[in-house]
Amino acid sequence: MIINFSERAHNHNWDLDPIVRSLLDTDFYKLLMLQFIWKHFRNTRVTFGLRNRTARFRLAEMVPREAVLAQFEHVRRLRYRKSEMIWLAGNTFYGTRGIFELAFLEWLENDFRLSDFQLSERDGQFELVFEGTWVEVTMWEIYALSILNELKTRAALKGMSEFELDILYAHAKTRLWGKIESLRGVPGLAVADFGTRRRHSFLWQEFVVEAMHSELKGTFTGTSNTFLAYKHDMEAIGTNAHELPMAMAAMSSNDEHIKTAQYRMLELWQQTYGGSLQVMLPDTYGTTQFLEGAPDWVADWTGQRVDSKDPFVAGDEYIAWLESRGKDPKNKLLIASDGLDVHEILSLHAYFAGIVTPGVSVRDFRSAADFEDSRKWRHERRIRFSSGWGTLLTNDFRGCHPRNEDALEPISLVCKLTSAEGRAAVKLSDNYEKASGPPELVEHYRKIFGLAGIAKIPVIV
Amino acid sequence: MIINFSERAHNHNWDLDPIVRSLLDTDFYKLLMLQFIWKHFRNTRVTFGLRNRTARFRLAEMVPREAVLAQFEHVRRLRYRKSEMIWLAGNTFYGTRGIFELAFLEWLENDFRLSDFQLSERDGQFELVFEGTWVEVTMWEIYALSILNELKTRAALKGMSEFELDILYAHAKTRLWGKIESLRGVPGLAVADFGTRRRHSFLWQEFVVEAMHSELKGTFTGTSNTFLAYKHDMEAIGTNAHELPMAMAAMSSNDEHIKTAQYRMLELWQQTYGGSLQVMLPDTYGTTQFLEGAPDWVADWTGQRVDSKDPFVAGDEYIAWLESRGKDPKNKLLIASDGLDVHEILSLHAYFAGIVTPGVSVRDFRSAADFEDSRKWRHERRIRFSSGWGTLLTNDFRGCHPRNEDALEPISLVCKLTSAEGRAAVKLSDNYEKASGPPELVEHYRKIFGLAGIAKIPVIV
Repeated sequence: MIINFSERAHNHNWDLDPIVRSLLDTDFYKLLMLQFIWKHFRNTRVTFGLRNRTARFRLAEMVPREAVLAQFEHVRRLRYRKSEMIWLAGNTFYGTRGIFELAFLEWLENDFRLSDFQLSERDGQFELVFEGTWVEVTMWEIYALSILNELKTRAALKGMSEFELDILYAHAKTRLWGKIESLRGVPGLAVADFGTRRRHSFLWQEFVVEAMHSELKGTFTGTSNTFLAYKHDMEAIGTNAHELPMAMAAMSSNDEHIKTAQYRMLELWQQTYGGSLQVMLPDTYGTTQFLEGAPDWVADWTGQRVDSKDPFVAGDEYIAWLESRGKDPKNKLLIASDGLDVHEILSLHAYFAGIVTPGVSVRDFRSAADFEDSRKWRHERRIRFSSGWGTLLTNDFRGCHPRNEDALEPISLVCKLTSAEGRAAVKLSDNYEKASGPPELVEHYRKIFGLAGIAKIPVIV
Repeated sequence: MIINFSERAHNHNWDLDPIVRSLLDTDFYKLLMLQFIWKHFRNTRVTFGLRNRTARFRLAEMVPREAVLAQFEHVRRLRYRKSEMIWLAGNTFYGTRGIFELAFLEWLENDFRLSDFQLSERDGQFELVFEGTWVEVTMWEIYALSILNELKTRAALKGMSEFELDILYAHAKTRLWGKIESLRGVPGLAVADFGTRRRHSFLWQEFVVEAMHSELKGTFTGTSNTFLAYKHDMEAIGTNAHELPMAMAAMSSNDEHIKTAQYRMLELWQQTYGGSLQVMLPDTYGTTQFLEGAPDWVADWTGQRVDSKDPFVAGDEYIAWLESRGKDPKNKLLIASDGLDVHEILSLHAYFAGIVTPGVSVRDFRSAADFEDSRKWRHERRIRFSSGWGTLLTNDFRGCHPRNEDALEPISLVCKLTSAEGRAAVKLSDNYEKASGPPELVEHYRKIFGLAGIAKIPVIV
């Protein structure tokens, strides 16, 4: 065996094994939102904050502070590359070329910077605050989350022998293959990778995405990760997120204005991107009130993404609403994206494909084999359905640790807009417990938007 | 990334990826038997022949004849190395140093050669005949089998993508880890690797053996593979096999002489190796007749290896026989070595450890957890028991193929003594169907040895 002396020496000497290798290593919707913000809110000042919802994982005790600082500083030194800008300019997204304006791309290449950040520790957790103009701050969300998640992974791998590491990945690959096998050949199935922020590591996400792409062909519709889409010629997927209506509501001058922010944001989006990219996320202040109060033109949008609501319920509600507005749901799009795994993906797909199974509930569908008979059964598509598969695609190491430790379990780390122009931002969501913002302001928003269709409301006897 | 140009060029240009890397890459008992043959039968002429008992695998249609020739010629060009001879001379085997005579080692280093061979094809199978002096021929057995098995593996891997290969090995590693977990912590358990001849590949056997060694510690008692024992400081395991009594019987001048060959061989072995290495293989002509007719000194031997008989039955028979000869079985050794997997290993271990389980049969033991309660149960060791784990340790790829093809299933390839000094060799074994030799001669041997204790005798109504 011939030793590669330079590689070996390098492997033992490098300063940093970077987690974020390119500024494109972010969710595609962040770039769409960045252009939107750059056009309409270039000087708006905001803050974002980090929260670990899995409090039992004392992240600051597992991950060295210096490692976080080194990775964050590395990202801040990165610049968009010329070749990446050419790709953003020349590539087709959602069937449309030229979605990014040249002026925006020039700004991105020459003037884009990430804001400063404050990192502190409290009660075993990192506290992270990003403050600056919205365009400087917003991109931190995905970089910060993927860095912290991968540093957690590295900490968990630290005590393992080479053999144990090998077995760990053998387990994870076996599980991944099982998932792929369960989805292979299901007619009409559409699945995309939404797992950048909670991935086990960059290289694992890349492995998973390449596996899905090569094995599931057209069933795998693309990845939300712009860098992987660029590197492997896949579709980049995603449109927009809560931060837009949240910021616009926060900056509103009265209750009426707060209430209309969710629609004004869509209007502005529509002006910005024309007919493409019209997939909305209606749950920022509750989906039911959103649909009830929506102007008619909202029903012309292509579809909606379901986040915090049970997607069976949310899909039925959207279909009924479309019909009440005189639209045919069959050509609309429903995307589920919260906590999905094979079982949910297949059951939802069967449900919205309108499969009526004699004796079996489609909610029990768990593998491609369950669809074999369905070709003979009666079914009529109710709505186009697609799954945005996140954490359990790119970070499902449950039970894979060779010594059954739980340090590789995914944690629920979020990085959210906390204020805009000095005023606190609020999210209500379709789940009472998932509301965010200062409690008295959350109460105020609840009075404005109501509680229709909200789940898990505490009952006071 | 820095490219190792020399490695890359080499990887695309090498003439041969050798399967047998060292002449020590053989079962340790072959070396013990080689010294025995060298001392007592140096000029005896024999033939060995190959047979594929799994006829549905048309090996000669899967593996190119040229590849077989190239690998065989490569082995013939190998020589024992000075460092290997020093190890054989200086290492302790079964607690004894100096088991190999210096004159033998000198002969091995300077004069040992492998015989010529004839390779032909018939009905989709390779026909292989080795002819020459016994010392030239005998060592072909393991080299030929491991070469043909690994060439079969390579043929099966040929059509697979890099990703599929990765998943294949992930599956196999996951399965191996499951086996290791099932054995971990079982009190008193003893398992050795006997899987050289039927291994998936040399590198896979090495991976498996290192994993067993590092994870199971003392439970893993060693490997029959001399090269791996040498390379990784493990115990080399094994004593002797059927070819010795078969040859001695074949060369016998009358029926009485044929009948005593099985004991004369043991006597000669005892003279050759003194008190060490006294583990016998009594099933060449049927275990029951062997034990009944055995001289009393045979009961002084350390133990026996069970091959073709149900090991529960064979162990009980051996224990009863030892007691009938006034010996305490508790300190004797029973080794099972045929078609074992976790279930058989654990059940046999529990059975001979004398575990009496309230309500559960020890024959259903399948994992270390089954032994947890057994510490509280009554048990008294009946005999020392050890497992020689072969094919299902080093070549268990059942169900691992990502496209569920069966090309990686292990096949039952054997390479056996067929004649000595021009006279056909016969084996009867404890299983009627496993007899080998010319049919009329097998019948003749059956008259000499009888059918007591033989399984699967055809019933003529």
